[in-house]
Order: sequence, then structure tokens, then C-alpha cells
Amino acid sequence: MSFSFDLLKQGKGTAARRGRFHTSHGIVNTPVFMPVGTQGTVKAVTPDDLRRLGAEIILGNTYHLYLRPGHELVRDLGGLHKFVGWDRPMLTDSGGFQVYSLGDLSKITEEGVKFQSHIDGSYHFLTPERSIEIQEALGADIIMCFDECPPHPSSYDYTSKSLDMTIRWAKRCLEARKRDDNALFGIIQGGMYADLRRRSAEETATLGFEGYALGGLSVGEPKPLMYEMVEATVPFMPVDKPRYLMGVGTPEDLVECVDRGIDMFDCVMPTRNARNGMLFTTRGKLVIRNSQYERDERPVDESCNCYTCSNFSRAYLRHLFKAKEILSSTLNTIHNLSYYITLMSQMRRAIEEDRFVEFKKEFYQLRADDDI
Amino acid sequence: MSFSFDLLKQGKGTAARRGRFHTSHGIVNTPVFMPVGTQGTVKAVTPDDLRRLGAEIILGNTYHLYLRPGHELVRDLGGLHKFVGWDRPMLTDSGGFQVYSLGDLSKITEEGVKFQSHIDGSYHFLTPERSIEIQEALGADIIMCFDECPPHPSSYDYTSKSLDMTIRWAKRCLEARKRDDNALFGIIQGGMYADLRRRSAEETATLGFEGYALGGLSVGEPKPLMYEMVEATVPFMPVDKPRYLMGVGTPEDLVECVDRGIDMFDCVMPTRNARNGMLFTTRGKLVIRNSQYERDERPVDESCNCYTCSNFSRAYLRHLFKAKEILSSTLNTIHNLSYYITLMSQMRRAIEEDRFVEFKKEFYQLRADDDI
Repeated sequence: MSFSFDLLKQGKGTAARRGRFHTSHGIVNTPVFMPVGTQGTVKAVTPDDLRRLGAEIILGNTYHLYLRPGHELVRDLGGLHKFVGWDRPMLTDSGGFQVYSLGDLSKITEEGVKFQSHIDGSYHFLTPERSIEIQEALGADIIMCFDECPPHPSSYDYTSKSLDMTIRWAKRCLEARKRDDNALFGIIQGGMYADLRRRSAEETATLGFEGYALGGLSVGEPKPLMYEMVEATVPFMPVDKPRYLMGVGTPEDLVECVDRGIDMFDCVMPTRNARNGMLFTTRGKLVIRNSQYERDERPVDESCNCYTCSNFSRAYLRHLFKAKEILSSTLNTIHNLSYYITLMSQMRRAIEEDRFVEFKKEFYQLRADDDI
Repeated sequence: MSFSFDLLKQGKGTAARRGRFHTSHGIVNTPVFMPVGTQGTVKAVTPDDLRRLGAEIILGNTYHLYLRPGHELVRDLGGLHKFVGWDRPMLTDSGGFQVYSLGDLSKITEEGVKFQSHIDGSYHFLTPERSIEIQEALGADIIMCFDECPPHPSSYDYTSKSLDMTIRWAKRCLEARKRDDNALFGIIQGGMYADLRRRSAEETATLGFEGYALGGLSVGEPKPLMYEMVEATVPFMPVDKPRYLMGVGTPEDLVECVDRGIDMFDCVMPTRNARNGMLFTTRGKLVIRNSQYERDERPVDESCNCYTCSNFSRAYLRHLFKAKEILSSTLNTIHNLSYYITLMSQMRRAIEEDRFVEFKKEFYQLRADDDI
């Protein structure tokens, strides 16, 4: 097994912790944010851009890559790392979440999920075994169990039965593994029910995974409820394994959930919002199309050292956005990813230096100031 | 005057020549291809990408920048170089060509051209004086005279009267200049009439510009006719000034027209075709969406050293194109510009080494081979 996790330091006055995991493609420092490379590319940036940004790990979406170009093609061409030109660690999800959210008319049984492709309407059947087979063909360093992600809101009864099936599926995923050069993470479900989250965490942990994820959060519930669910789950997750909060979130979410003991995050927000002209700054959000930036010579964020902020004004970025130039998406994405990656790096340092509580206070103080 | 041109070497057995011009933003080696940055960006690539590609000069379109974000805004923010983050030489066209081709219902009089914006339908009036004023506000190193570019085909009589007006406009452009840190190029018209081309060349030359362009070519006429017009014009253009063939062209056009004594080219073809998945190679064109590339592990062009060819397979580029990923445009643009810029560099070396005739022969031999 080439995957291992070291818990380097437990934060002071917080559940935040500083860790590091090792994969066959290198080391990842936690807490970490993983840019999402849905279809074999983090949208609008090159692998070189990502390296310059200091991204240590990126995510690929199994659902998308399975449908196009197909996992067998990717495997035959040397695996996902080689195919997309990224030689650092990668993680693939199981395809489950997209099957439920993108696949048409998905039908769930004990065996697995039947769904229609969002690309051409063709029928497909995804099972725990099939998801592992596809993910092993793609060849990421971390792969995920195939789970059921119940819609929000779901009844207690449905959520309870669903998490039981997810646990049975998790066992099938473990049994389906053929490779030993990657890590398989279990996924904790349980909706918005603290006792179900605890049960799911405990039962999943007994199965013995290299890491554990919280699924089914950030699905429309109020923020305090999401934080409450994280708080209700983390204490029952193994201390010596990485904890991954899937599909989260805003900068505030990252700070709040690092504070609650989460080690890994992924979210399309920095990249998607970039393409829509919504930029993250230490002082809050900046909507670049706004006319107030028409002649604004300042960089997006004066405290940012990214390529975009080092070279271009808000006025220029506004012009590119209004002119619908591709470079708008690229420069905005570089900045937003830089913001996220820098935020994580600041949190890692704060934990190391026993000042995470102060860091969090300052983080909110900066945002209280309305002058972006 | 900070612009000067050195004719370094006259090719052997060809009208091709090796030169170099100096601007306040640096040196440009000729023959040169200038990537087109229409709206303040060469589409889909960053200034850093362009530097890595070895681009020595890029073009901006006055028509587009005048309409959005406006030349006064660009001037107030420090000029086009600063606005777009490009510190090497730049050239702006006069806006004329786009007024005729993009502006709705343009109406031409001796005074100038009235047209409607393609963005919002607003009315504008462009004159030689106004074009120079706008270009000087943008602040490129080379600016162009405002000319009339008659449609193809046009009658002898219309073309003759039009070029007379273009010459009167050229005088007005000279008189309208206020800056002395840039170069102003005259534009030779004359349609597809060799004697009119000669007259336009001779009369424009007497006005005394820092360089001379051929306008009104590559407007739908057959290739042999375009080459004939270049041949009919070049001998009457000053030897000691750069010669710029506007809006041209294919790789074959570049080779043929360098052979006929042209020093500068610009064209949207490498960038636009890149976005449409049409890639240039030493062996001819490659349409990346074609199914034959589905599992093709080779780079686009095995003799190319660009970022795209060094890191990505045809199979991956096909996937990106089919998935409509922004990275498809970026990687394809990097390759196509690399192809164009490398082709020019090869021609410069061939001229220096007195083997341009052999180079041209090899250029066509490679393309005769059907196996891309």
C-alpha cells in the first residue's frame, strides 16, 4: 500500500489539525483544497497553471470520464495522470453523486443504479463493483466508495435505510478492489440526522478504509445545519485517517470545517464562479462586471500574489468579462484557485503556529470591512 | 523617432529578406507573424503564453478597442501595453477594415466613414484624424493609416478613385499625428489591378512613412491573383522600409509572400482555427475532432516543441474539443501560434543561410506526404 497519512499536529483551541498524506504521485499537505477537474481538465487552466498555483492534488469526476472519453480509453492510454498531463496526486469520486444529480431518471436498487447519460441519453448501470473497476482503470491515487446520496430533505427512515445500503455497498467496494497502489475512502452518509451520521461513521470505520469522507452535505441545507452535522460526525471518525468533506464549499465553509477537524475539501465554486465573473478576495466577493470597476487600476486583491493580480487590473478583467473573452475565464480561475489554495496554506501555517483561533477571527474581521 | 528598420540581408534566388525593426518596446525580427489580439487579448492565451511562444509583436484592433472598453479609458489607464499586460511591441490597425466588414450600414464620404457599432447599434464617425487620435491614445508602437478598403470585386474606376481618396486620407493621417514615439505605416490599395497597385505604392511612398502595408488582399480573390498583386506591388515599395501584408494568411501564403519580399503578416487564422479544432502541422492540417485521433497517443506535430505538443496527445486534445472544454481552445491556440511563429523563425534562418529556395521546396514536400 503506497498510501499513508501522518497527523502532524493537533491545533490549539480547535479541532483543526495539520497533516500530510503520501501517495505514489507525491505528498499532499492537509488541510487541503482540491480543484475539480471534471472532464479531465480543471476548467480554463493548464496543468502548468495549477503547478504554479501550488495545487498539490486535483479531482476527476468518474461519471464524466466514464461517459467521455471512457475509462478504458484512458486506461489504454496510460491512465488519467498521463492522459491529462498531471503528475501529482489525483482523486476520483465514485460517480454516484453525478448519477443522482445529472443522470436522467436514475433508478436505485440494491444491486446498483441505472441511469441515462446526460450526453446522449444512453442507458448505463453503475454498481459498487463497476465504480471501483472504472476508478481503477482511471488510476487516481485516491478513489471513493460508491454510495447513495439521498436527496435533501429525506425522511429519517429513508436516510437510515439508505445509509445501511451505502455500508453494504462499501463492503462490496472493498471486495472489488484489484489495485493496491491507491487509497480507497469510505463515505459517511446520514443526511441531517446526527445519530445516523454517528452510526454511519462508526460502522464505516469498522470496515477499515484509508480515509473517510462526509457525503450528502452542502445539498441545500442551511449552513448552521451543515456545520452541526460535521460536528456530530467528526468525533466518531478515526483520528489517524484523513477526513474529507465532499463538495464543500465557500471560503467561510472551509474555515469553519477546518476548525471542526476536516482535512480535505473539493468544490467547483472557485472555478465555476470565476467563469461567471465572481471573484474571491480577503475582503469578500467581487463581481467583476460591476461598473464600479470600469476604471479601477487595482488588482482584484491587493494581498494576492497570483499571476492575475500581479499583472492585470480590475478594469482589464472587467473588459475581458464583458467582451466574453476566454482569457476572462482563465485569469479569473487562476485568481480564485490562488485564493482558495492560499487560504488553505494560511490555515495550515496557523495550525502549526498554534494560532488558528486568531486566524479565524482575523479572517472574519477582514470581511466585515465593506471596502473591497 | 524611436522606430527604425534595418535590412539585414537580401535572400539568394528570392525576394525574401531578413530584417529587424526597433521600437520603444523592443526589437522585432522580420519576416514576422503578428498574432491578433482583437479585443485586448490574443484569444484564449495569456501574455505569458505569448512570451513563451516567442511572439515578438502582437496586434490590437482599433475598431474593437474604440467601441469597448474605449480608447480614452485605455489611455487613462496607461495605454494598451499596460492595460493588457504586454510589454513588447504592438501594432494597431486603423479600424477601417472592421468598419467596412463589421460595422452596419457604413457610409463613406471624403470626410470619413459613418457606421453603426456591431455591439449596440450606436452611430460613430471615423475619419483619418479620429483614427490617428484613437490609435495614439491606445499607444501602440506601430499605427496604421486610415484607408478605404474597397469590396472585392470592385470596378477599375471605383478602385482608382478609392485609392486616390486613401492617399488624401494618408496625408491627413500624417498631419494628424501628435506623438513621435511610434511609427505610422501607409497602406497601399489598388484592388486586383496591377497598375493601380503600382500607382498606389509609388504615391504612398512619396508621402514618407516608416513602413508600408498592402491592404485589400486576401478578400476572396484566388490565391494566384493575390500572389500576382504582391509581385506587382513590392518592386515599387521602398526597399529600406518594412512591408506588411495585412490579414494574410495560410502557412503557404506566408511562405509565398516572404518569397515575394513581405516582412510582416497578421491573421486570425491560427487562433480562430485553433478554437475550431483545426491544427496546423508541418505535414498539413489536422482536424482534431476526427475519430482517427480517438486513441492517437502522438502529439499534434512530432516536430513541434510547444507546450501542447510536449505534454498532450491527440487523443486528449480530441477529448477536450468534443467536451467543449476551454482548455481545448487554449492548447490548440498555443500549438497553432507555435507553428506560425516557428515557421517564420525557420524562414528567417533560411534567408540568413542563403537557402530559402531549398526551404520552400522542403516545406511543400513535407505537405505532399498525406500521413499526418
